[in-house]
Amino acid sequence: MFDSVRLPHELGKTEFEALLEPLREKLLDAQFELAERKRKAILLLIGGSDAAGKGDVLNRLYEWLDDHHLDTLSYGAPTEEERARPLEWRYWRDMPAKGRIGLVLGGWHNRLLRERLIGGMGRGAFEAGLEEINREEEMLGFEGVVVVKVWLHVEDEVAERRLAKMRAAQGAPRRAAVIEWDEIETGKHHRRLRRAAFALVEKTSTGVAPWSVVAAEDARYRDVAVAKLLLEALERANGAAEAARAPIPATPTEPDGGLPRASLIGALDLSKRADPDAYSKELGELQRRIGELTTSKAFSSSGLVLAFEGNDAAGKGGAILRVRAALDPRRFRVHGVAAPNDEERARPYLWRFWRNVPRLGDTAIFDRSWYGRVLVERVEGLCTRDDWMRAYREINDFEHQLTRAKLCVVKFWLAIDENEQLVRFEEREKRAAKRYKITPEDWRNRGKWALYEEAANEMIDRTSSPESPWTLVESKDKKYSRLKVLRTIVARLEEALV
Amino acid sequence: MFDSVRLPHELGKTEFEALLEPLREKLLDAQFELAERKRKAILLLIGGSDAAGKGDVLNRLYEWLDDHHLDTLSYGAPTEEERARPLEWRYWRDMPAKGRIGLVLGGWHNRLLRERLIGGMGRGAFEAGLEEINREEEMLGFEGVVVVKVWLHVEDEVAERRLAKMRAAQGAPRRAAVIEWDEIETGKHHRRLRRAAFALVEKTSTGVAPWSVVAAEDARYRDVAVAKLLLEALERANGAAEAARAPIPATPTEPDGGLPRASLIGALDLSKRADPDAYSKELGELQRRIGELTTSKAFSSSGLVLAFEGNDAAGKGGAILRVRAALDPRRFRVHGVAAPNDEERARPYLWRFWRNVPRLGDTAIFDRSWYGRVLVERVEGLCTRDDWMRAYREINDFEHQLTRAKLCVVKFWLAIDENEQLVRFEEREKRAAKRYKITPEDWRNRGKWALYEEAANEMIDRTSSPESPWTLVESKDKKYSRLKVLRTIVARLEEALV
Repeated sequence: MFDSVRLPHELGKTEFEALLEPLREKLLDAQFELAERKRKAILLLIGGSDAAGKGDVLNRLYEWLDDHHLDTLSYGAPTEEERARPLEWRYWRDMPAKGRIGLVLGGWHNRLLRERLIGGMGRGAFEAGLEEINREEEMLGFEGVVVVKVWLHVEDEVAERRLAKMRAAQGAPRRAAVIEWDEIETGKHHRRLRRAAFALVEKTSTGVAPWSVVAAEDARYRDVAVAKLLLEALERANGAAEAARAPIPATPTEPDGGLPRASLIGALDLSKRADPDAYSKELGELQRRIGELTTSKAFSSSGLVLAFEGNDAAGKGGAILRVRAALDPRRFRVHGVAAPNDEERARPYLWRFWRNVPRLGDTAIFDRSWYGRVLVERVEGLCTRDDWMRAYREINDFEHQLTRAKLCVVKFWLAIDENEQLVRFEEREKRAAKRYKITPEDWRNRGKWALYEEAANEMIDRTSSPESPWTLVESKDKKYSRLKVLRTIVARLEEALV
Repeated sequence: MFDSVRLPHELGKTEFEALLEPLREKLLDAQFELAERKRKAILLLIGGSDAAGKGDVLNRLYEWLDDHHLDTLSYGAPTEEERARPLEWRYWRDMPAKGRIGLVLGGWHNRLLRERLIGGMGRGAFEAGLEEINREEEMLGFEGVVVVKVWLHVEDEVAERRLAKMRAAQGAPRRAAVIEWDEIETGKHHRRLRRAAFALVEKTSTGVAPWSVVAAEDARYRDVAVAKLLLEALERANGAAEAARAPIPATPTEPDGGLPRASLIGALDLSKRADPDAYSKELGELQRRIGELTTSKAFSSSGLVLAFEGNDAAGKGGAILRVRAALDPRRFRVHGVAAPNDEERARPYLWRFWRNVPRLGDTAIFDRSWYGRVLVERVEGLCTRDDWMRAYREINDFEHQLTRAKLCVVKFWLAIDENEQLVRFEEREKRAAKRYKITPEDWRNRGKWALYEEAANEMIDRTSSPESPWTLVESKDKKYSRLKVLRTIVARLEEALV
C-alpha cells in the first residue's frame, strides 16, 4: 500500500511561492462558499506518525484559511470529563456545524491504533473497530459531514532523527506534548506502527471517506498537498449533491494541480535492458520452471490469476504470449478485456471477471482487467468519482476472496514512456499485420497521458497488498520486460506452492 | 429483535382471495416494467429455518409472476464445479441481468450461519463475515442490483412438528433435500440457530438491504407478505433513482397494504389495571429502591439513560415525574425533545442526543428521543426511506456504544388506544392548565394512527436487543403504567449493578 509516498516529494521555494497565492485565494473562496451555503460541514482528519508535522500542517491551514469558520479538534489522553462518558462522546461534542471546517488531530482512528499497538487489543477487535468507524463515517457522509482523511508519512530514519531532536528538547513541555506515539516509536515498534497504520488506511478507505497518504518530509510539499486535498473536498461539498454523483470528466485544468508529481511509475528506470545473448536461454528456463510449477501436485489445489495492465503498446500481448507458451493449453484461458458488451453492462462490473475465475489447478490470464474501473472508466468519466473511489475497496475484497481460496494473484503494470509509445504506434501503423492494433482512440488516449499515469499510480498505491502486490515492469526493452514478468510468476508460484 | 413475528399472523381464505387478484396484477405490471426498463435487477433472498416453507414461497412466486424473467438460484452443498473455485463464485455466476428477478434459496448468509453453528467458526470470524456481506450487498446496490431479504419464521414447536413429518417421509428423497438445517434443528441447537439467525438479521440489516422477518406459520399470510415485499421492491426499482432518494410521503393508499396487522403494540392488553389501594405504597417503595440504586457505589461507574416514547397523551410526562421524584436532583437531567432547532439541524441527527449523554453516575431522561427519525420523521416524510432504514443500524450502534460504556439504557413505549387518546385530548382542551399540551398537530397525528403504529412496531422489532430491550407499557390505566415503568427501571438497574 502507498509505496509511492516513499519516493522523494519536494517543492522548491520559488515553485512554492508561485503556487501559494492562487491556492490561498481558491481556498478562501471555497471556504466562504461553504460558510454561506451551510449545506455541509468538513472534518479534516490529520493523521500520521510522530514528527511528520501534523501540528505544523494545522498551523499552516490556520494561516491560509479564515479562522472564523475553523475549529481545532485535538484529542489526547481523555480528560476527567471525557473519561466519565462513552469513548465516542468527545468527538460528537465537537461536531462542527454545517458551514464549518473542523481540523482533527488525534481522531478516532488513533485511539484504535493505540489500543492495537500498546493496549493489547486483538486483531478481531481491531478489525471490528475499523468497521465500526466505517459505519460511523458513512453515516456522517449521509448527514452532511464530509470526512477528509490525510495520513502524513515520513520515512523511519527521518522520523527517528526528528524525534531524537524533540526528545532532547523535552525540557520544553509544549514540545513534549506533540510526541504522541513516542512509546512505540522505537525499534521494531516503529515498524509495527507503520504496518498497523497502513492496515488501518487500507481498511478505512471507503468510497465516501478515503485516506490520502501524503509525503511529509518536505514541509512545503506536505502543506500544499494537504491544502489541495482540502480544496478538492470543499469544491465537492459546495457543488450540489447531484454534481458529486454525476460523472466527473477527469480533465482538471492543471493536471495534478500544479504539484510536481512523484509517482511509482514515473520513478521507474526504463533504461533497464536484458542481456540479449542470455535472453533465450533464461526465457526457456523460466518457461520450463513455470511448466513444472503449474503441473505440480500442489498447484492442483491452487491456481493462477494473472492481470496485465500497462500503457498502450507496452508489450502486454508479447509478454502474455511467452507465458502461454509455458502452460498446458488445456489448463489456461486468456481473457481479452475490452469495453463491456450488453450482457456485461447488465450486471455489476466485477461479474465478467468472476465468471472467468479459474478452477483450482487452472490459470486465467487477463489482458486488461477489473482495474478498468479505476483506469479508463475514471479517466474517461465513464463512472462517478464515488464509483471509482469505492472500487479500490471492492477490488481489494475481490482479490482477497481469490487469495483466500488459494488462488495466486499476480498483477503487472507494463510501463513505457511517451516517446517510446509514439515510436511503437508509428511502427504499428506502418506494419500491416499490426495495424489493427492501433485505433484513433489509442491516439486520443495519448493526450491524457498524465491523467492515466495519475490514475495508475493511485491504483497501485491503493491496491497493492502483501497477498496480491503489483509488479511494475520496465518495458522499454521488451526482452527485459518479458523476463521480469516470467521471473515474477516463478517467484510468486514458488512462494505460494512450496 | 423481531418479537412481533411471534404473534399469530393469519389470513382467512376469503380475505386471501380478495387480495390476490389485485396483488397479482400489480406484481405482473411491476415485473414487466422492470424487464422493459432494464435498469435494475432484483435478488430476492428467501431465508428462514427449516419447515418454514421457503420452497413453497418460491413456488407461489412462480405462479404469480411471469417466469420468463425469473431465475431460481438455489444453493446447497457446493458441487464439484463450485468447490474448485472461491466460495463466492457461484453467486456471481448466477447474477441476474438487469430486468430480471432472481429468487435465492440458501444464499450467502446461509453458508456463514452453517459455519458458525456447525463448522466451528468463531464469533470474530462470523462478525467479519457479516461485514463482508454488508459491503458486497452495498456494492450490488450501487451496481443496480436491488437485494431484498426475507426471513421466514415459524415457532419452534411448529417447526418441530413439521420436521417430524418430513423425517417420517424421508423415504422420498425429494423431501429429504429440503431439510437444510436438520442436523442443528434439534433440542438446544434449535435455539442456537434462532439466536445466530437473529444476530445475522440484525447485523446485516443495512439501509440499502434490510431483512424483513415474516411470520410463516400461515401459508396464505406468508405468501402474500413476501409478495408484497417483492412488489414494494419492484416499485422502488422502477421509480427513478431520484425518486428513491426523495422523501416518500408515508401515505400508502392502503395502510399496511391490506394485510391484517399483527403488531406487538396492537397485541397489548390495555385493560391491565393497578390495584388503586396498593398503588401509593408500591410507588413509594419503588422510588425508594431507585433512590438507593442510583446513589450506590456501583452506580458511580455506571449511569442511566431513559428514553420515553409512546402515543401522544399516553402519560409520558406523568411517568417521568414519578421517576424524577426518586432521583437526586443534582444527578439527573430531563431532555424534552421537540423539532430540532437550527443548531441541531446543522449537525447529524444523533448529535443532540450525544451531547446529552450523562456522565457515569448520572441519569438522563429523554422525553421523546433519537427514535424520532424512525417515527415522526418517517411518517411525516421528513426524511427519505433510505435515511430511516439505515437509522435502525445507526441507533443500534449508538446504543451499543452507550452500553459498552456501562450506561444502562432503558426504553419505554407507552401505549393507549385511539379512543382513550380522544378522551384525554378532549379533557385536556377543557382544562386550561393542560391546554398548552394539545395542538392542532396532535389532532392531525391522530389521522395517521395506523402509520405511527406500523412505524413504532417496526422500530421495536428492529431495535430491541438483549442489552437495550424495549419495554411496552400498557398505559390506559396511569397507575399501572407508572408502576410498570418504575418496576422495569428497578429490575434493569439491579441486573446491571448487582
